[in-house]
Formats: sequence, structure tokens, C-alpha cells
Amino acid sequence: RSCALVLNKALSSNLIIPDFQGFCGEIKKIYEDLKKVKGGKNADYIPQLSRVNPNYLGVSVCTVDGQRCSFGDTDIPFCIQSCSKALNYAINVAEHGPGFVHKFLGKEPSGVGFNQIGLDKNGLPHNPMINPGAISCCSVLKKDESLADRFDYATNEYKKMAGEEFIGFSNATFLSEKSEADRNFAIGYYLKEHNVFPENCSLFETLDLYFQLCSVEATADSASVISATLANGGVCPTTKEVCVTADSVRNTLSLMYSCGMYDYSGEWAFEVGLPAKSGVAGSIFIVVPGVMGICVWSPPLDELGNSYRGILFAKMLIKKFAFHQFDTVQGDVKKIDP
Amino acid sequence: RSCALVLNKALSSNLIIPDFQGFCGEIKKIYEDLKKVKGGKNADYIPQLSRVNPNYLGVSVCTVDGQRCSFGDTDIPFCIQSCSKALNYAINVAEHGPGFVHKFLGKEPSGVGFNQIGLDKNGLPHNPMINPGAISCCSVLKKDESLADRFDYATNEYKKMAGEEFIGFSNATFLSEKSEADRNFAIGYYLKEHNVFPENCSLFETLDLYFQLCSVEATADSASVISATLANGGVCPTTKEVCVTADSVRNTLSLMYSCGMYDYSGEWAFEVGLPAKSGVAGSIFIVVPGVMGICVWSPPLDELGNSYRGILFAKMLIKKFAFHQFDTVQGDVKKIDP
Amino acid sequence: RSCALVLNKALSSNLIIPDFQGFCGEIKKIYEDLKKVKGGKNADYIPQLSRVNPNYLGVSVCTVDGQRCSFGDTDIPFCIQSCSKALNYAINVAEHGPGFVHKFLGKEPSGVGFNQIGLDKNGLPHNPMINPGAISCCSVLKKDESLADRFDYATNEYKKMAGEEFIGFSNATFLSEKSEADRNFAIGYYLKEHNVFPENCSLFETLDLYFQLCSVEATADSASVISATLANGGVCPTTKEVCVTADSVRNTLSLMYSCGMYDYSGEWAFEVGLPAKSGVAGSIFIVVPGVMGICVWSPPLDELGNSYRGILFAKMLIKKFAFHQFDTVQGDVKKIDP
Amino acid sequence: RSCALVLNKALSSNLIIPDFQGFCGEIKKIYEDLKKVKGGKNADYIPQLSRVNPNYLGVSVCTVDGQRCSFGDTDIPFCIQSCSKALNYAINVAEHGPGFVHKFLGKEPSGVGFNQIGLDKNGLPHNPMINPGAISCCSVLKKDESLADRFDYATNEYKKMAGEEFIGFSNATFLSEKSEADRNFAIGYYLKEHNVFPENCSLFETLDLYFQLCSVEATADSASVISATLANGGVCPTTKEVCVTADSVRNTLSLMYSCGMYDYSGEWAFEVGLPAKSGVAGSIFIVVPGVMGICVWSPPLDELGNSYRGILFAKMLIKKFAFHQFDTVQGDVKKIDP
Repeated sequence: RSCALVLNKALSSNLIIPDFQGFCGEIKKIYEDLKKVKGGKNADYIPQLSRVNPNYLGVSVCTVDGQRCSFGDTDIPFCIQSCSKALNYAINVAEHGPGFVHKFLGKEPSGVGFNQIGLDKNGLPHNPMINPGAISCCSVLKKDESLADRFDYATNEYKKMAGEEFIGFSNATFLSEKSEADRNFAIGYYLKEHNVFPENCSLFETLDLYFQLCSVEATADSASVISATLANGGVCPTTKEVCVTADSVRNTLSLMYSCGMYDYSGEWAFEVGLPAKSGVAGSIFIVVPGVMGICVWSPPLDELGNSYRGILFAKMLIKKFAFHQFDTVQGDVKKIDP
Repeated sequence: RSCALVLNKALSSNLIIPDFQGFCGEIKKIYEDLKKVKGGKNADYIPQLSRVNPNYLGVSVCTVDGQRCSFGDTDIPFCIQSCSKALNYAINVAEHGPGFVHKFLGKEPSGVGFNQIGLDKNGLPHNPMINPGAISCCSVLKKDESLADRFDYATNEYKKMAGEEFIGFSNATFLSEKSEADRNFAIGYYLKEHNVFPENCSLFETLDLYFQLCSVEATADSASVISATLANGGVCPTTKEVCVTADSVRNTLSLMYSCGMYDYSGEWAFEVGLPAKSGVAGSIFIVVPGVMGICVWSPPLDELGNSYRGILFAKMLIKKFAFHQFDTVQGDVKKIDP
Repeated sequence: RSCALVLNKALSSNLIIPDFQGFCGEIKKIYEDLKKVKGGKNADYIPQLSRVNPNYLGVSVCTVDGQRCSFGDTDIPFCIQSCSKALNYAINVAEHGPGFVHKFLGKEPSGVGFNQIGLDKNGLPHNPMINPGAISCCSVLKKDESLADRFDYATNEYKKMAGEEFIGFSNATFLSEKSEADRNFAIGYYLKEHNVFPENCSLFETLDLYFQLCSVEATADSASVISATLANGGVCPTTKEVCVTADSVRNTLSLMYSCGMYDYSGEWAFEVGLPAKSGVAGSIFIVVPGVMGICVWSPPLDELGNSYRGILFAKMLIKKFAFHQFDTVQGDVKKIDP
Repeated sequence: RSCALVLNKALSSNLIIPDFQGFCGEIKKIYEDLKKVKGGKNADYIPQLSRVNPNYLGVSVCTVDGQRCSFGDTDIPFCIQSCSKALNYAINVAEHGPGFVHKFLGKEPSGVGFNQIGLDKNGLPHNPMINPGAISCCSVLKKDESLADRFDYATNEYKKMAGEEFIGFSNATFLSEKSEADRNFAIGYYLKEHNVFPENCSLFETLDLYFQLCSVEATADSASVISATLANGGVCPTTKEVCVTADSVRNTLSLMYSCGMYDYSGEWAFEVGLPAKSGVAGSIFIVVPGVMGICVWSPPLDELGNSYRGILFAKMLIKKFAFHQFDTVQGDVKKIDP
């Protein structure tokens, strides 16, 4: 009998979150507390972002073994914007290998404002999570194919990571982004001048691809699966498909950890301690490595450009659960290790 | 019978490194490869460092459950130098709480050269792992007590973390450090001018404490226990004594991860992905959170000021074992998860 | 009789350089010494510049009362390149007043490399002598007229300042400049993003005007008259035509003095102490305020982008004559005050 | 008869300001307008400066031929503070030659805030008009002699330049300066670390000399003679004594012109166009090269640290008189050329 118990426990503890229902209850409480919070302001540099209902709030969780829960507006499409930067880097490294990709971009926090125009000590954009590196990253992605094929390739990869759940495209956002892109054109020409791009690279095509991938849509639900794929070493937890390589996941998580939250990245790494990437439409993709992926979406942004309620969510999560990369389960810990 | 097997396996897998002997064999191979490598140059700004035999090489491992192995010169005392910065911060946060300590220093990589004189956006030194923040950290440590008591307090804490193993003091090093300290005096006066220090703080006493704690000695063996205490949430794995709080450990590991290796920190976080702190006498304290502490010691430094063979050790370690914080054990992994 | 002598002397000393023949003899000696010097390298970012015979050397002088002398290749056309920056600013301030023009650009040395992308503390490009400010300057020039009329207007003004002597245009240079203009496009988009340009400004037209005015040609002879017009408070010494206002001349000379020689400007102001502007085709327009204009032209450049022999010329000139703005004619002076 | 007239005119025009009485009338008007102006705030980092009556206002003029006029509080002693920087540099270059002096400091505007800690591209403090360069300058001054002799030497030179008029010393200011000197100690140690000082240099003696020379007193009257000595190529206009060399004067005026007014220096050079040096006690030494020296003193400072009414004085002066280095007397000029 005791033997059966042991076996049973062994089995149940194979699930990464043994008491998933209890866990979901805690997430729900956080969601409900967040629902009452007001603060922040939608991005307004293009009308497609300023017009979104600022009350939307969605929280989706997907564990590495495919358990899921969702609260609020988790099936409304939003543009993933800068969250695409993390995916493009992951896809690129998986496709071309880190050695090749890092001929065109660096791997460290820039230490200066996220939108500074400048290069690192090797003459490369600092990392793929900020605009210069992200544009450089797009220049490399399937660079010898047509623009159409490159876009198709990337969005197919996104869709695989999302377990074939919703991935859409907002053409209006793309057109608006393109017409409000002085900074990105400045960056593009600056990189071109410094020979950062691969040979025969077309700056205009590169920027088009960049803006298009920023205009790809997901829902909190589909995005939580993407995050979970990253949490699961590149294997989609719902379809079991191998999407990106383990090398690629390690690099991507490293850079999301140190550079994924604009100028809040340093503080985020210290306080929250999880790889994440935020986008200007109000989404944050959060990865708890080996455990789960989370997407929180709420359009109003704080002054550093991260979702106001998204940041609050992460702080409340990390207060309750021992998810910080350097949280410990020894010693005088009071946090839950779910 | 099969039940007994299950129980047995459960028991054995309670050990963090089930096949410790196998693991030690791999570490030994790395040690032997390293032994053949030449490169780097002893620090030479004071004679006490330049005179140390550059052939010394020690590697010590201590797991969170107290298993240990050592190769080479692991019982020769060396000055811990900047490794003290991590310990002082840990002790401080454990003693005074993170809120109080971070009134006097920041929590992010500085993004500029490690020895720049400057403050972060809040008017504080960037973090406790580089000189300005480390000096600020010393100004806070048991600030209302006498210098003698403060030194005693700190070294006692070091000794607890080292499981009561060897902790010494090199007075010659202290005197030399103090006499070659133009930069640190410049930093000290700069911080004083910017009101970074606590009220009634004596700059000279603060710097004395700082130099003295840099001149504390350890061996690779005792230092591996210190690292293991950090890996183990603040509880010494050999004595089971609770040394520092879980909060303090999380903060300390976060900052060792992002700022512990001078100007190599960004690259280290990306490539090695482990909290670590290096000192100019050639030691690197490496923490594999929840698993083990490692100390590697070899006096010659590379041009960024880290132990030349220490950096090589970490790269070889991470190539073989899935110890990188964002290494994954899913997907196409070829690394060992010991 | 003695009265006649006094009158005679008064008359002769009305000429700004009483012994002009003697002065020309000294300039000729400098020219001949320079002729023997080798050093520097033609600009090579476009073929039109790299192909110019590097042996060309021309030195032309025109005093504010119209006395002239020329040595060497002073009737060969060259592109004035960045020398146009000084003229465009002068024309702009004369036309629109300093208040209006300085809504779009600053008035101080930038303190950082001349080709950095950045703005001053007021959010404006630092000054009209470096690319960002020069592009901003072009955006303002007769901004409500057609591109053709704007170009005509500027070149007519140049020609007036040159006493109707040679002013040409190299269309090949213009086309090459435009096709090698990544940096300038980057700057242009950066300025556009920061709302530096006037309303309804077309970035492409602005850059076209900028490149075209860089591609305007002069000879050392005609350029010495332009410089002399600036030396003479905006009145052409050969035609007596009032070209630009005294205000405009004061501002232009101030900025040529502090910012006209790329990253050598600070050293130039200290060592040579004269307003000047250099161009990448190897010309330097030098102004001795109230005395004369000089143009020296020699295509090979030093590593800071100034004419190698042009810089040497200025140093030899200033060693011989008390032309430095802060040279004194009291005390222990050994220099000639011609 | 006409001959006599010519001779007479020639004679009278030998005076640098032929109608000196008229000129003084204009200065008096400016003084009276200034007298009504309120604004700015005394320096308050030491009590000796904060306690000075903020209503004091003195304007003194001394021409290169010794004509003088004074308005207001021109015989009240004030500490010359940073104005000593210009004098120390002048004395140093006259004594040791520019080649030797510039082994220890640079010659260009720093381009960054005047109190930044940093070195120029040659590893030297940027220029003698800001603290790091001024401290370096003091380290060189008669470096092999005793501190007492060095102080005596410098103040004797000051007194010669002042035509033997009032030069005093405020020991209370010296003691206060020394006790509030964290920034200067930080700078001193920073320079020491970077081997900027001459061999065997004592940092403490250097700083003592620096603080002592800041605490030297002058009156607006005596300071106007000092300025006039600089305007007159180093020869005191009242005693005819040769004080500093022509080389030294040229260099000093060049650096006063580009760097003498703290962070307002760029704007000052553009708008006022005269060599000047301001001090935190509210004095500005203004040099009209070849024409006159002026001292204006009014203790309240603007936010950049220059005398509030002193800056206004200069603007009013330059609006009325063609004293800007690049003012022209040709063309459409409406200013007075006195």
C-alpha cells in the first residue's frame, strides 16, 4: 500500500505544477486585483494602438506539460510588436546558428537608453531585443529568399511555437508603422553606413520585414503557448513539435532576461528575475524556464513603454511564487514553490 | 522488489548530483587540461599580488548537500579581493534588509567601464559589485560600531559561510592596497560630495574597511563552501548554519550574475549563465544555484582583470554540463545534466 | 613738404597691408616650402574625389581692399564640399535673421566627434558647421520655394560673394554623394524624428539641396574672394557689393572659429586662431577678419579630414604673421604685423 | 592749417578710445540700468560667499593706455575664486613655456559639464579654466619650491598685473574652501591615479595652493588693471611693467574665450565674443584685446554659476559697442566703434 502511494506521488509529481487548480486560483486572485487597477496610457504614435480599448486585460498560462488557464480578454487579437524581436532572434539562431547570427549583432545590454543610436565595442548593434539589433536580425532572416517567403517563413514559425493557435496580421498597423518610422529609418541608414547588414541586403526590404513582423497578431492564449515553447526548450507543449533548438532557446532566454523590458530591463532582472519581452501594444511574454509560459496583455503603458498592469502582474506573481531565477527553496523562504 | 528499486532511486536522487564520482572525474579532466594552459599575467599594481606563483591552480567543488572534491592548489591562501564585494553585499542585505541597503547603492549593470566614476539615474553608485557601490556598501555595514567590530563582524560572517574553514588576513596586502588607492580615494570623495554615504560616515574608516575586507584570505576549498552557501539559499551545506537570508541570496546572485565579472559580465551572463564574482588575485567564486559552489583560483589575469584560466574553466564546465541558467533539458540537448 | 609726407603716409597706411609686395613674397616662400611636402591621402568615398591629382596645390590671397596674389593651381575648379556649410549659414542668417535660423540649429561646438548623431541640450543639432546642423540649415534656406529656385538662389549668393568669379557645379559629384549618403540619410531621419525641420519640409529635397551645394565648384582664386567678403563684413572687396549682413558675418566667423575644422577645431582655434572652414576636397577657406581672405587647396587629407598641406600652410602663416585673433602687438612680440 | 589738423588727429587717435569721456558716459548708463536689476543668488556652499551683500555692484574699466573709469562698489575686496585659474595659467606659461605646461593639461573646451571628472583624448585634463586642469596647473607652478614661496610668487605676479593695486587674501575663505572640497579631492586623486601630475608632486600641497589662490582678493578696480594687462599683451598699462609673455597672453585669451564661463562658455563666445573668466564670488574679468580690461562684480549668480548681472552687463556692452571679436566695422553696422 505504501509502495502504491510512493508510485502515485512519483507520478503526480511528474506534473510540473502538481496542484494546478490551486495555482490557477492564485493567478485568478492576481487577475481580479489587477482588474481594479487604473494607470498608464495606450501608445499613441499610431492610431491603431491609441484606439484599442484600454480596459482590456488578459492573463493566460500554459505549463510545459500543457496545463492551461486563462482569465479575461485572452482571445482578442493584439499586435505583438516588439515581442516579435525575441521570436525573430530565436528563429534566426535556430536556422543559422548563433555564430552566424552574432556576426550581425551583439549579446549584451546596451547600458544606454533603448533607443539610442550607437554600436557596441565590436561595431555591432548591442542585442536583438532593441531596435538596431532587431532590424539587423531581420536583415539576416532567410536573407536570400523573397520578402514574401521570408514573411511566410517567420509567421509559420510563430504559428508552430503557438501550437497552431491564432496568429494574424494587421495590415493597417503595418502601414501606420511604416509611415511613422523616422527613427527606424535613421537606425537603418546608420547600420547600413557601418556595414552591419549582410551583403546585398536591401534596407527597404529589411525594414518592411521588420515592420510586418511587428504587425503580426496573437492573443494572450496563443502567446502563452509561444512563451511555454520557450520555457520548454523549444518544444511546443501542446503539439510536441520541436520548434527551435535548445541553443537558440538558451540564448533567447538570456537576452530576454537581461534586455527584454526596454529601459526597465535591469530593474526587471533584479526584481522579477524571469526572461520576458514586452511590446508596445501592451503585451508581455513571460517565461518561467522549465515550468510555464505566461502572456499578460493590457494596452496602457507606463512611462518606460511597458504595460502598466503587466509590470504589476509580474511583481505580484513573484511576490507569491518562488519563480525568480535566483529564488531559493532553502533557508527562511515564505514563497510558494507550486 | 520493483518497489524497493523505486524507493532506492528516490533516495539516491535526493542527492543533488546522483553520480558524484562521475562528475568529479569530469572536473578532474578539465583541471588537467587547464594545467597545461599558459596565459594571462598576475596583477602587478602591488607587489603582494605580482609575487604570487603564477603556476598555482586550484579547483574546489562543494555541493549543496556537502559532497566535495578538490584538484590542485586548493589549500593555499589567497586574498579574496573583489570577491569580498559579493559577500559584503550579502551580509549587508541580510543584516539591514534590501530596502535600507539600496538607499545607498543601485541594482543594475552600469553599462560603462567598471571603473568609471559616475552615478546611476537615481544618483547612486550602480551596483555593489563595482568599486563605487562596494565602497558605499562598506559605509553601511554595521555603520554605528567601531571599525574593529565591523571588521570582526564581517570576517565572522565570511567564516560562517565558509563552514568555519580557513579565513585569514594579509596585512601586507592591506597596507599596499591602501597606499595604491588613488582611484578609490577619488571615488570615495566623489561619493561623499554626492551625499551617497550615511550620515556621520567617516570616509577614511569606510575605505579602511573596504581595503581590509579585500585583504581577507581564503583557500579554494574554503571559498567553494562560501559559494555553496550562496547556492544553498544562505544555509551552509557543511554546518547547516543559516548564514544569510533567502532575500539576500536572491539579490546577491542576481547581481553576481549581471555584474560580477568586471567588463566581461555581459558576455559571461550570455555564455556561462551563472552567478559569479572574480577577484584580482585570480579567484572566481561560481555559484550553480541549488546545486553547488565552485572556486577556481589561478593568479594570472586576462586583460579584463579576470583569472585567465578561471574563465577557461567556466567555459569548459558549461560546455560539458547543462549549468547555464537557461540551459534546457528538453529538446535536442547534448549536454550532461549531472 | 613734411606735411605732404604725413599725408602720403596716411594714404599708404590706408591700405590694410601697406607693403603688399613684401607680404606676397613671404606667402610665396611658404607656398614653395609646401610644394615639397608629401603627406595625406585624397578622400576616397566617391571616385570623383579620389581621382583628383594629389599634387595640386593652390594658394590665393585677397585683401579687404582688393589686393590679390596667387601661387600654384589657383584656377582649377574643385568642389567646395563642407565649405558650403559656412556659406549656407551666412546666407541663411542674412536672409532670415539669426533668431529664425537658430530655431533650427545651435551655436556651440558639439564636444563630441563631428559625425556623432545627437542633439544639443535644446534638442537641436549643435551648429551649422557639422552635418546635422548643416542639413538643418539647408532645410530652412528659402524653404517655401522650389528646389530649383533654392539652388539658384544659393549659388547666386555664392557668386556675389566671389565677386562674380568662377562658381561651377559638378553633377557627377552630386550623384555620387547622393548614392553614398547612408550617414546623411540616418542624420536626416533622426532630425525628422526629433521635429528639427520646419513644417512641411521634405527630407529628400533638403538632402538633395545639401548634396548639390556640396557639389558646387570654386577655384582657389574665387574662393579667396569669398573668404575676403567674410573678412570684410559681408561686402565683396572686388565688386563692393553688400552680400551678407554684418550680423550674419559675425555669427558665421564665430562658428567657423570654434567649429569649422572638424575634430581639429579646438586645436585650430588655440594654435591658429582664425575663422576657417575646410572641405573634403582639400580646400580651406581662411578668414583674417578685417584684413584678408585666403584659400588654400591641396586634395590629400590628414586623418581628421582636413587638407594635410592646408593645415601646414596655416601653421606656417601664423608662425610668421601676427594673425591669430589673440596675437598681440605689444610686449615681446617677434611676429610680423604686416 | 590743414596739416596741423591732420597731425592733431593722428595724435588724438593714438589714444585707443579717442572720446573716452563719451565712452564712460555709455558705461555709466549701463551701470545705472544694471543697478535696478534683481536676480540670481549668492553662492552658498561656504558661508564666506553667502554672507556677502548681494546688492554690491562694481564696474571698472582700464584701457591699454591707462585711461580709467569706475562705477559703484569698485574698491570692496572680493575673492577672485576661479578668475585665478586664468592668471595661474598665464603665469605658468610665461614661466615654464607652453610646451612644458601643456604636458600636464589640454587646450580645448571639454564639451561636457564643467565639473565632470574625465580626461581628454590625450589623457590630460581638458583645459586650465575648469577644475581638473586648474588643479593640474597649480601642480606645475614653481613646483620645486616651498608652498610658501609658490604662494608668494603667484600673488606677486597677480600684484604686478594689477599695477601694484589691491591684492589681498581671505584666510577664512581658504579654510572653508578646503573643508568643502570633496569634489576637488576626488578630482585630485583621479588625476594622481592617471599620472597627470609632475613627479614628486604632493597632492595635498597642490590642492592647498589651488584653494589659496582661489581665496586671493582683488577689487573691481585692481581686477580691471589685471584684465587690461592681458588686453595689452602682458604689459601693465599703468606701470608699463612686462608681466607675462605675448605667447602666454595669446594662449590665455584663447582659452578664456572658449572655456572661461563654465557651461555658458559656448554661448558666451558666440554672443559676446570676448575672452573672459568668471568666479563664484560674482566677478567677471573681461578682456577687449588691444583695447581695454573690464571687471564687473556682483555676487548673485545665475544657475550656471556666472554673475547674473555680470552676464547682463556683457550683453548690454556688446549690443552697444563693436567689441565682439568678429564684429565688423564694414557693411551695415550700427554699433559704436569707440
